[in-house]
Amino acid sequence: MKSRAAVAFAAGEPLQIVEIDVEPPRAGEVLVRIVATGVCHTDAFTLSGEDPEGIFPAVLGHEGGGIVVEVGAGVTSLQAGDHVIPLYTAECRACKFCLSGKTNLCQAVRATQGRGLMPDGTTRFSYQGQPIHHYMGTSTFSEYTVVPEISLARITPEAPLEKVCLLGCGVTTGIGAVHNTAKVQPGNTVAVFGLGGIGLAVIQGAVQAGASRILAVDINASKFELARSMGATDCVNPRENDRPIQEVIVEMTDGGVDFSFECIGNVDVMRSALECCHKGWGESVIIGVAGAGQEIRTRPFQLVTGRVWRGSAFGGVKGRTQLPGMVEQAMRGEIDLDPFITHEMPLERINEAFDLMHRGESIRTVIRF
Amino acid sequence: MKSRAAVAFAAGEPLQIVEIDVEPPRAGEVLVRIVATGVCHTDAFTLSGEDPEGIFPAVLGHEGGGIVVEVGAGVTSLQAGDHVIPLYTAECRACKFCLSGKTNLCQAVRATQGRGLMPDGTTRFSYQGQPIHHYMGTSTFSEYTVVPEISLARITPEAPLEKVCLLGCGVTTGIGAVHNTAKVQPGNTVAVFGLGGIGLAVIQGAVQAGASRILAVDINASKFELARSMGATDCVNPRENDRPIQEVIVEMTDGGVDFSFECIGNVDVMRSALECCHKGWGESVIIGVAGAGQEIRTRPFQLVTGRVWRGSAFGGVKGRTQLPGMVEQAMRGEIDLDPFITHEMPLERINEAFDLMHRGESIRTVIRF
Repeated sequence: MKSRAAVAFAAGEPLQIVEIDVEPPRAGEVLVRIVATGVCHTDAFTLSGEDPEGIFPAVLGHEGGGIVVEVGAGVTSLQAGDHVIPLYTAECRACKFCLSGKTNLCQAVRATQGRGLMPDGTTRFSYQGQPIHHYMGTSTFSEYTVVPEISLARITPEAPLEKVCLLGCGVTTGIGAVHNTAKVQPGNTVAVFGLGGIGLAVIQGAVQAGASRILAVDINASKFELARSMGATDCVNPRENDRPIQEVIVEMTDGGVDFSFECIGNVDVMRSALECCHKGWGESVIIGVAGAGQEIRTRPFQLVTGRVWRGSAFGGVKGRTQLPGMVEQAMRGEIDLDPFITHEMPLERINEAFDLMHRGESIRTVIRF
Repeated sequence: MKSRAAVAFAAGEPLQIVEIDVEPPRAGEVLVRIVATGVCHTDAFTLSGEDPEGIFPAVLGHEGGGIVVEVGAGVTSLQAGDHVIPLYTAECRACKFCLSGKTNLCQAVRATQGRGLMPDGTTRFSYQGQPIHHYMGTSTFSEYTVVPEISLARITPEAPLEKVCLLGCGVTTGIGAVHNTAKVQPGNTVAVFGLGGIGLAVIQGAVQAGASRILAVDINASKFELARSMGATDCVNPRENDRPIQEVIVEMTDGGVDFSFECIGNVDVMRSALECCHKGWGESVIIGVAGAGQEIRTRPFQLVTGRVWRGSAFGGVKGRTQLPGMVEQAMRGEIDLDPFITHEMPLERINEAFDLMHRGESIRTVIRF
């Protein structure tokens, strides 16, 4: 079938809005009509060419909401008409990782997903007869996309897809990291580095968890107002301090915070985030994705004296199991998606969404098909 | 009073066996007669001059067992005749750290201890009228030493001090890291990097915890026999592999180990130890002490994909609370100290103990007064 799509033909170039061909779903696959999709920094990272695993041409996009159109052979958990959120972290419920009870990092389709292909090693997308790659197993920048059954969370049809699509990545990543990875408890202190969509979601998660103090850290002071409105108790600008920001935070918090979150992807900030944690028990969670080949570093003394360094992907959330409940939370107002949505536009203007993001003028732009 | 002691007068020089003067204990302090002490790599590290916090002249030694001779004013938890193990990690039971329930890193005497002084900022040791510094709050290389009350664990008088002195550092550090820091569970897989006293103690702890597989890693194959006899299931020599050892271990263990322990103090090995952990849940514990200014490094992707990097000091053990029980375990044979004691000698030969250690020919030499 034909589908309007924003195709990334080459790194560093704007997306092109074209009509691509989408093949029907094969065994274990599902054809989804995307109703709305967020535009995330990871899409921009790949489009920029900095992502060493980026493959072109491809249909990007990984933060969508849609409706099942057709299911392939053997698909039992979904049927046409179901509302779904595509998952870039699948949940097969059968692999060693899914069965471990310790991680959300299902590996069932990882290899082919990383090569921009469906699990059978082929693509469902083409343009003028030339194959187009999938992206993160989701490719939500196309009105119609094909996704493995195990990469779809079925959600209540009452949820507004143009909002809950944000639970497909950023908001879930931030909130999930607070609850699943860090396990913040009432009364804990928290520092959040980077006040983009994920950082703001961490703040929202920390408020839910009952954190007593939430330090919002960013070099762009224009972000502080929103951070405060969402629950940050202190805003800290590293540019306004002539000492390493970890020293400032350790002093502000009588020894450091209980938990810190790096939501940027900057390895120097990751170090600051670790070192602002309290001796003896502070834990730092890396959420941001660093550039190719970049490394984190610190003195091992930081760990030997009790700090813990961890990371989080998709907030530690098992998509098919946990995301439906998070959608319900959003419906009840326990997760507030509205502050994240600063812009909406049709697919045809998607390159504007990237421009807004690059200029730091948007949290999330939602593309409506 | 007069006391035989091995004094480190200067970095890089042999210890000198001399008769020093020891002042009586002041308020909150205890005079202890040391019966036996182990010689640990940390003593050698400081003596070498590589330890940036090393202070000279000093009475080194931190792995001792002794008997209380006299208590200072206000000391209520100990009396003359009590058998004790000095603690380089105090336990005041009153500071923020002790009360946190999350760490053993009591900070009550940390500042003065780091400067080689008693909590009141003075020293009890002198030689020919010149002050001699304390070391790690313990200074067990002196027949008589003065220690804060909060830095002494009272143990059963039935325990042989010439053996249980090893619980003052190495054995407790290794076993404690397994149980308190990593919390190894039955069936877990474990990799141990470095088969000195601490590494062997980690093996012993992993056996206690019911680990299903224990990989012992060292570049000195002569250590493998003892490691196997203590419970290692596989011995791995990085020098016999032409690939990074983390790759070898990941392959041997179908994806990596559940827990790894770095027991050397080498920052490159710390990286290998992290990266041989299983994606999704593997945790690496740094125990070894690295040289001044050295840094650990890895790609943040290692953490974002679920590995956890932590450290452990004194095995996470609260000395006054937990060490008496560990001594009882040693009495019952649940902790076997015999394999660690490869040599015994009188104080006068202590420099031989350092030589044996430098040549890799001893696990622990116990000095008997």
